[in-house]
This record gives sequence, structure tokens and C-alpha cells, in this order.
Amino acid sequence: MPHFWLDRHLLNAIQKRAPAPIRLGLEPGSESSHAPLSMLPTIRVKDRRTLLALLSNPDINFGDLYSAGRIEVKGDLVRLLEELYKTPESTTSRIVSRLSRLIPSNSMRASRKNIHHHYDLSTDFYQLWLDPQLVYTCAYFPDRNTTLEQAQQAKLDLVCRKLWLRPGETVVEAGCGWGALAIHMAKFYGVRVKAFNISREQIAFAREQTCREGLGSLVEFHEDDYRNISGKSDAFVSIGMLEHVGRSHYREFARVIDRTIGQRGRGLLHFIGRNYPHPLHPWITKRIFPGGYVPALGEVAEIFEPYDFSMLDVENLCTHYAKTLEFWLSRFEQSYEQLAERFGTAFARMWRLYLAGSTAAFRTGTLQLFQIVFAGRACDSRPWNREYLYNNSALQNEREVKWTRVMF
Amino acid sequence: MPHFWLDRHLLNAIQKRAPAPIRLGLEPGSESSHAPLSMLPTIRVKDRRTLLALLSNPDINFGDLYSAGRIEVKGDLVRLLEELYKTPESTTSRIVSRLSRLIPSNSMRASRKNIHHHYDLSTDFYQLWLDPQLVYTCAYFPDRNTTLEQAQQAKLDLVCRKLWLRPGETVVEAGCGWGALAIHMAKFYGVRVKAFNISREQIAFAREQTCREGLGSLVEFHEDDYRNISGKSDAFVSIGMLEHVGRSHYREFARVIDRTIGQRGRGLLHFIGRNYPHPLHPWITKRIFPGGYVPALGEVAEIFEPYDFSMLDVENLCTHYAKTLEFWLSRFEQSYEQLAERFGTAFARMWRLYLAGSTAAFRTGTLQLFQIVFAGRACDSRPWNREYLYNNSALQNEREVKWTRVMF
Repeated sequence: MPHFWLDRHLLNAIQKRAPAPIRLGLEPGSESSHAPLSMLPTIRVKDRRTLLALLSNPDINFGDLYSAGRIEVKGDLVRLLEELYKTPESTTSRIVSRLSRLIPSNSMRASRKNIHHHYDLSTDFYQLWLDPQLVYTCAYFPDRNTTLEQAQQAKLDLVCRKLWLRPGETVVEAGCGWGALAIHMAKFYGVRVKAFNISREQIAFAREQTCREGLGSLVEFHEDDYRNISGKSDAFVSIGMLEHVGRSHYREFARVIDRTIGQRGRGLLHFIGRNYPHPLHPWITKRIFPGGYVPALGEVAEIFEPYDFSMLDVENLCTHYAKTLEFWLSRFEQSYEQLAERFGTAFARMWRLYLAGSTAAFRTGTLQLFQIVFAGRACDSRPWNREYLYNNSALQNEREVKWTRVMF
Repeated sequence: MPHFWLDRHLLNAIQKRAPAPIRLGLEPGSESSHAPLSMLPTIRVKDRRTLLALLSNPDINFGDLYSAGRIEVKGDLVRLLEELYKTPESTTSRIVSRLSRLIPSNSMRASRKNIHHHYDLSTDFYQLWLDPQLVYTCAYFPDRNTTLEQAQQAKLDLVCRKLWLRPGETVVEAGCGWGALAIHMAKFYGVRVKAFNISREQIAFAREQTCREGLGSLVEFHEDDYRNISGKSDAFVSIGMLEHVGRSHYREFARVIDRTIGQRGRGLLHFIGRNYPHPLHPWITKRIFPGGYVPALGEVAEIFEPYDFSMLDVENLCTHYAKTLEFWLSRFEQSYEQLAERFGTAFARMWRLYLAGSTAAFRTGTLQLFQIVFAGRACDSRPWNREYLYNNSALQNEREVKWTRVMF
């Protein structure tokens, strides 16, 4: 080992730059740690070239090197990432990141490309680790024994209740994934749904499910951009799409909501958020969600303020997203061999890292999950309080939902 | 009537400037209206001098002339004010008001003067129309048959539940009014409370109540400014004080919260808000709440973002405030003769107009009432979801509140 001193120097340099104590070592070889040699997971780096790459741009290269198998983590990957997330960011770094906030421009064309990148991977891929309805957003766990399937159903139902949907009403859904919510709304709440999505693969799946359920007369799927939504509806809902809208398009998004529901309607936005404005992790933006941005609540106010919408209810479900991700990651690991074989090892490792990192981010409060219910000023009926959301937990008895005119 | 044409001209000019159709007339004399002569309440103006004053500065002078008895409203005062509030403000006026946003400077000295102006009026005055515990903030009505007394108790309890208080914990309350919440927290949740208020009259009343309840060992009242709060506590609560803090002091307020609860604590803010940034009505600022400012949710984010606090739950109770104000106004009217005799007719009329205007503002969605629950990132226990808030409505069984560690 002629350059052992160089390796040690590099290992030390990386450790000094890490936001939390980490155990780091060359494979095979010695191990270096500023932390007590406790139960911490260990990062094993394949060779000097990898060490140099990691040092040159850790934010991007850690993920890429991990995907390429040139970095291994011995021990609990989520736990390691949690340690890194737990360290509060310095105020300076927060200010810098605020100033340098990336405002990606998601034109319709760019959006199509970005969404294709993530969601058109192949439905088979997602079927290997999501629930059968393919709900790829935070679930809602009424209690600790809830399964993922039940929790996704409970989430769909919670959204319908929060929107106090009534039979015969019309709903526009922006960004409908594989159609589970649109189908749930029509099936259990008797509403007519127009759902929009620019992922061809997802729309095809959603249409097939709708046919199978015999709900073709109630649910329409449009393979189109949210900016092309036209017509009026009683309610507007969007689950997990705002993250793809991009910070500079909020006004445009707000205009769409306003022209859809006007001052008489109401809506619900469900999205990943933050405690303060901050760009997404650069590796996530590069490899997982190009064009993505995850806003603080204060930034989202820009959607509601220009149209005099009242925010009625905001619920932060970040701990539910941590739990959802634990399910996804565990299923992902169970199918790992199959995933690696079908989609390649580098791809499977990249997705493992992304799921583990997201779990850590929600566990540590680095990311939040907000559900916001809002209404126009002339929305003349709304639930008197939130008790009805919790009073009967059974699905399908939507007719029993109690709501009261505002002025009694 | 030599100048009848002038009167008509003035009446017309005022009507044209009014934001909604109004019926307006000189007393005694003819009546002018751009609206169909329907059921609209009528504004009767005493004389030409009053008409001219109204025309010169309607925002301020309407209230002052009404208080002075030079303007009368025949018919439902709240209904008239509702009509005026219902008309959406033009975008231009909104932009202008945003630009010209008053940022009142509430130094400790100014705050003391401002708070004295409103809250040191005399406890007797408030006793004539508030509930016996003198809770002078929005109540919470579990259902339509709730009385004001029950609804204020339910509000105090809802706040305690939202804060998931546990026996032995410590709470700081900023702006404690006549002490009802501090007493409720100690009595039913077994917590130790340090409550702050700069109104001498309110503190004296609160101390007396605490003695009477035998809670002296659990509750301390400090006649002091929120900026002088020192020491640590598990939770921070402030009900109806943010409106008096003033827009330019949010950072200072946030610093107080941060140094009190740090990253391990949690808190609740309850305050009147708006759908978008806008100054208080100038007459209200001049006569009722000098130094007051009522923020949009986006503005309040400034309190949470710098300290990485997570907003966990936001509930908008504006319809509950409309109902609370209906109770207050109705009691105020019942005691009107007595109030006018003790405090003067002009004062009683001013307060009637303020209560009626506030009722109209909450009914029309011009004002909102937000309760925000927030927590630091290291707050390691928090309710798993909100169901426990509604599962048992009886007071006093705080021990049954179910909460779960975040990670289960």
C-alpha cells in the first residue's frame, strides 16, 4: 500500500466535511472514524478513485457511486442517512441555499420529459413494491396495526371526507397517478371525475381499472397537462403533483384552480413540503425528480392568496410518510433480486438509496407532508368542524358524513 | 330645504363610492338608493354636515359618526356590514393595500399603551357581555346546541388537547387575558403555567381566580411583556395575542418561542388572520386596536421558518368566531342600556359597531381564525393523528388522551 497516507488523508477530509460523525473505510483496508466505534453503519469505499470522486462532489457523487456499487453501506442504510439528516443545517447554509434556490422552469414540454423520466418507467416496476392499487403517495395509518393496503384506502377516504364530497358533484383531479383516487371518489362518493396526467403508462392503467370497475360513465382520464384543464367543477384535488409543478409555476397552477372551482368551490392539495424554503437534494433532482421542488407552507400561500381562497385545514402527515416508506422499502428489499435482474443492479441500488433517503428525511423531520383543504369565499357549505372526519372509520358509508351549512 | 339638490348630490356621491348597494337617507328627509328598495337596512344620516364628513373620509368617519349618533342604521346592522364586506376587493386595491401595508412599531412602551387602551377598560365592562370566565377570543362549538359558556370551555380544552399536555409539564402562555386558559391547563391537565400579560386589570383578576381555585402553586401570572419571557418550558401557547404583536415584531416573537421551547418543545398560536396580506380597517386600528395587525398564513410562516419549527396542524375556525360574536353582540344588546349609562352612549355605540362589524367580517370570510400547532424537530412525542382530539368530548379526562411516540 504505497499511498496509504493519501488514503487516510482523503478519508479524513471526507469525514470532516460530513454533516455528522460517520464511519468510513476503504475496501479492503483500514477504517477511519471520528465517531466512537459504536453501532454506526459503515461506509465502505471501493478504491482511491472512488474516494477522490466522493471528495470532489459528495452531494451528487455519493448517490452515483452507491448506485454503481463503488460504495457499500454495511449496516442499516436508513439509520446512516438519518444521522446525516439529523444534524441541523447551519443558518449560513440555509441562507445560501435560499438565495441560490433553483427555480426550475417546467414548461409543458419539460414537464412531459420529467414525468416520463419517473413515472413511465414501467408499471411492472412499481407493482413489485407498491400496494395493488399503485398509490404512490403518503398513506394514512389510522393506527399501528394498519397494513399498507388499508392505509392507502384510508388515505383515499380521508381525502374524500376532507373534501366533503356529495353524490352528483364534479371533481377535477390534477396528476392522478394510476387512478386510485379518481376511482375511489366515483365508486364510494358517487361523484363525476375528470382526471389529468401526462404519464401515458399511468393513464392506460387507470383506464383499464376504471373499465374493470364499470365506472366508465363517471370517470374520464385525460392524458394532458394540468395547464390544459378546462371547464368548471365543484372540487379540485391534487395528490403529489405540486412537487412537480415547480416554484415558478405556482401562479399558473393557482389560475387553473381558480378557473376550475371559482369562489364557490373547494379543493385539497397533498404534497411533500418543508419547514423552510430549500432546494431538493441535488442528487434527487438529477436522478429521481428532475424539475421537482418541495415548498415551505409560506411559499404555497402564493397559490391561495391571489384568489382569496381560505385555507381551512392543514394536516402534517410526515410521520405517516415515514411509515409508508418503511413499507415500500421493505417490499423493495424483498423483491430486490428480481428488480436488479429486470432493471439492472445500478438502477435497483439507485432506487434503494432514494427510498432509504426519503424514509430518513421524513423520520428526521427534514421533509413534511401537508394536506391543505381550502375553499373560495362563496363556498356556502362546509363542515362545521373536523369531528365528522373521525366519527366513523368504516369506508363506504359516505352518505353518513355529517356536514352543516356554515350559518346555522 | 333650500339645498335639496346638494343633499341629493352628496347622497349619490357616497353611494357611488360604497363597495355595495346601500340605502342611504337624510334624517328626516328623502331617501336615495341605487339598490332595489328591498329589505336592505337603511343608513340615516343626521344632517348635511354629517354627509360631508362621511364623504370626506368614509373609512374613519362612518365609525366615528355612528358612535356619535349622527348616523343611524334602521334594520339589521350586521346584515348591512355583511353586504359591504361581501363585495370582493378589486385586485388594484389589494395591491395598493399590500404596498401601503402599515407596519406599526409596537415597542414595549407602545404595546403597554395599546393594550391598556383596549383591555384595561374595566373588567366590569367585559363582564356585562362575555362568559363568566371572561374568555375574549373565538370559542369552539362542538355542535349547534352548545352555549357560549360550554363553547369557551370546549375551546380551552381543545387547545390543551392539541398541545397534548401531560401532568407535570411546564407551559408558558403569552398574553393570557383574564387567565381562563392558564387556570384550565393547571386544573384539568396538571401542568405548571407561567402566564404573561401587560394588562394590569386582567392580571389582577386572573390572580384572584387562581387563588379562589387553589391553584396558586401551579400558576404564576407575570405582569410583563412577552419579550421579557425567560426560562424553558415544554410548551408555548398564545391565544389572541399575535394580533397585537405587529407585523414587524414577528422575528422577535419567534426568538422568544425558540428560546422558551427550543427544538424539543411544541406550541400553539391562535389568532385572527386573513386570506391575503391586508391592513386592518383604519377605523378599527384608530379606535379599537391601535398597533393591531391581522396576518395571512404566509406571513406567519416567518415565525416558524427561521427556527425549523414544523407546522403540524392548522385549523380555520372563522365560522366559530362568527357564532361567538353573535353571542357577544346579543348579550351586548341585552345590556345596552346599562352599558350606555355606565360608559357613555358614544362608547357603547362604538363597541356595538365593532362587534357587529367583526361578526360580518367572519361571516363573509373577510377575517379568518387560525389555530396552528407546531413543534421543534427534536420533539420526540406527538400524537400519531388527530383522532384523539374528537374521541372523547368530556372535559377532565385528560389522562385518557391517547398519544403515541412518533416512531412506532
